[in-house]
Amino acid sequence: MTISSLIQKNPSKIVLVVLDGVGGLPKDGKTELEYAHTPNLDGLAKVSACGLHTPVGYGITPGSGPGHLSLFGYDPLEFQIGRGILEALGLGVEVTKSDITMRCNYATIKDGLITDRRAGRIPTEQSKRITERLQSSIKRIDDIEVLFAPGMEHRFAIRLRFPHPLDTKASLIEDTDPQKEGKAPLRPNPLTKEAEAVAKVLERLISLVAEQIKAEQKANFILLRGISSLPDIPAFEDRYGLRALAIANYPMYRGLAKLVHMNTPALEGTVQDEVDFLKANFKDYDFFFVHVKKVDSYGEDGNFTEKAARIAEFDALLPQILELKPDVLIITGDHSTPAVMKAHSWHPVPVLIHSPYVLGGLCSAFSERECCRGELGIFHTTHLMPLALANALRLKKFGA
Amino acid sequence: MTISSLIQKNPSKIVLVVLDGVGGLPKDGKTELEYAHTPNLDGLAKVSACGLHTPVGYGITPGSGPGHLSLFGYDPLEFQIGRGILEALGLGVEVTKSDITMRCNYATIKDGLITDRRAGRIPTEQSKRITERLQSSIKRIDDIEVLFAPGMEHRFAIRLRFPHPLDTKASLIEDTDPQKEGKAPLRPNPLTKEAEAVAKVLERLISLVAEQIKAEQKANFILLRGISSLPDIPAFEDRYGLRALAIANYPMYRGLAKLVHMNTPALEGTVQDEVDFLKANFKDYDFFFVHVKKVDSYGEDGNFTEKAARIAEFDALLPQILELKPDVLIITGDHSTPAVMKAHSWHPVPVLIHSPYVLGGLCSAFSERECCRGELGIFHTTHLMPLALANALRLKKFGA
Repeated sequence: MTISSLIQKNPSKIVLVVLDGVGGLPKDGKTELEYAHTPNLDGLAKVSACGLHTPVGYGITPGSGPGHLSLFGYDPLEFQIGRGILEALGLGVEVTKSDITMRCNYATIKDGLITDRRAGRIPTEQSKRITERLQSSIKRIDDIEVLFAPGMEHRFAIRLRFPHPLDTKASLIEDTDPQKEGKAPLRPNPLTKEAEAVAKVLERLISLVAEQIKAEQKANFILLRGISSLPDIPAFEDRYGLRALAIANYPMYRGLAKLVHMNTPALEGTVQDEVDFLKANFKDYDFFFVHVKKVDSYGEDGNFTEKAARIAEFDALLPQILELKPDVLIITGDHSTPAVMKAHSWHPVPVLIHSPYVLGGLCSAFSERECCRGELGIFHTTHLMPLALANALRLKKFGA
Repeated sequence: MTISSLIQKNPSKIVLVVLDGVGGLPKDGKTELEYAHTPNLDGLAKVSACGLHTPVGYGITPGSGPGHLSLFGYDPLEFQIGRGILEALGLGVEVTKSDITMRCNYATIKDGLITDRRAGRIPTEQSKRITERLQSSIKRIDDIEVLFAPGMEHRFAIRLRFPHPLDTKASLIEDTDPQKEGKAPLRPNPLTKEAEAVAKVLERLISLVAEQIKAEQKANFILLRGISSLPDIPAFEDRYGLRALAIANYPMYRGLAKLVHMNTPALEGTVQDEVDFLKANFKDYDFFFVHVKKVDSYGEDGNFTEKAARIAEFDALLPQILELKPDVLIITGDHSTPAVMKAHSWHPVPVLIHSPYVLGGLCSAFSERECCRGELGIFHTTHLMPLALANALRLKKFGA
């Protein structure tokens, strides 16, 4: 039985708000959610179904990729997204089934040995100039389009676009990074027959690039890591019958939504701009993924009060979303990022589902601890989409 | 993806205390944990992550073998330990991959038919003398070493040690117990090609033993049951990167720890002796399995107050463990043994995890009912090891 076989359509609207990294841990007794001033979230939690969800598994700390795929209902262990893909998405690069992507480092080579794997962490501006020069001189290798995407310091990404969709095994190629200074760079070694042709292209690419940058003081070579292509992922609309709009002002999250073929218009600005965009497009879609990034950013910085302030900022905007009267409103995160840990963590993520079909009355606020009392319990994140569809009355009965 | 692929090492210490059979049921309104005087456990529960875990499945009552394997993170449905192995371990017999073990009954045979499958439940002392006599006269069959291990009443165990490791299918041999009096004993019938040679050895063994004891009044024959060999179980250290020490004063539990290749030094004495052993070895290992047996023993006897007294006894020792400042301290059981049932039961087992990375503040005591309010919810016991590793910061992020 798959959820897809139970789908029925209706005019309902589902809004999924992802406060990135919202889950936290206590500092002086209170978590970020408990510390933040959130009268609207708390009021909503009182009349919603609440609980906590686990994106990958008990004790497993999810990256952003697995966290979002799981929210969209795709098991992150079944659909593993390569590092190169995520790097490209994070730099705003579009990825299709015809592409091979990879994370790249500028490095320093001398007499055939890597003397610095990070080219002395050259300044971003300098790195960007080199990457742009590479782009202007290397645009194609035969019929393969080459895209260079500048990154921070020594890091950047490359996307190779082939004239045809690729086999999923075509990117199974080993990193060229020897992992230690004083060693020669490795060759891009293909691990499958399907990857042999791509590996040959990578060898030519490395030579072409090295020829262009050999006169650089530090960044005179490149190392390739996380060589990857898109896995086969069924489209969100095919799976759930929902026309979906991603509203995210960071490219990484539009990229993740694009992996499941959501509509992902480019967007910049504040969370208020995102809410305005939601209002402007509310009649045209069935499902809205609204991503709020800064909650996680301050968590990763270990800035407890600013993380709480970003939560409170969203709380103040929440009435505007409620005014739209979505049939189902879900507020949660893609993982926890406790400020006291300065990192993503394994802790289950608080969630509330608001619809006419909930018990409610179990939680007095929207927080990790209050959600422990909720009617949803602790569940795998992939169950969230079936719950969203059910609350939108978009799932038929199973069996007679 | 397996947990093993996410392991990272650090100097953290994890202590897992197993109060065997700790979970209970109310008698006059209170469970054993609620009745026992446990100020230290209760104080710890207030600042810990609490919940309940299910060793095998809903409604399934686990034996000690499945209960412990599940605590160690090995799915007890995947790694099934034969009855013969558990019997041997319980009698303090070491088992290796070169061994076949079995539970044995002395029985009474007359004119080729079994007239008493338990040889009139002969007294243990008498049974022991016969078993020792067998050992002195039967030491080998060809190049196979034969070990007899005396047990209670008509029960004992035999271990055959072959000169080489055995195929896991070599022990798939049917019991010789006809299950009913008045029938002839069955032949040890091999169920696989790999078991044929072993079955022939067992036929010779039965003849040799019968020849030795044929003059006995009651115990003049033997029946073999639960013929088993060791399954392939990955080593705990390989799986988790933890050097593990088992601290258990009963051979069965050292045996279970040895199945996953923990260090299992012989140990006798009280729970205080176990705690002293923990202290003495604390710097030399990463993971400590501390087993407290008597809680279960009194539960099985139906002695509610003595079971509660054993819990209170451990509570009084808890501060000594806390003084060691383990990074992660877990206190739980391998299954429930409600005194009112005088037996193991299927009820989920209360657990607390103490580390710097918990919410806490949800439970006012360590008990079945308070743990129902905890942040861990009800989860499968195999998730406990990933949680332990996560709380020790020994797991890398999954995906980017």
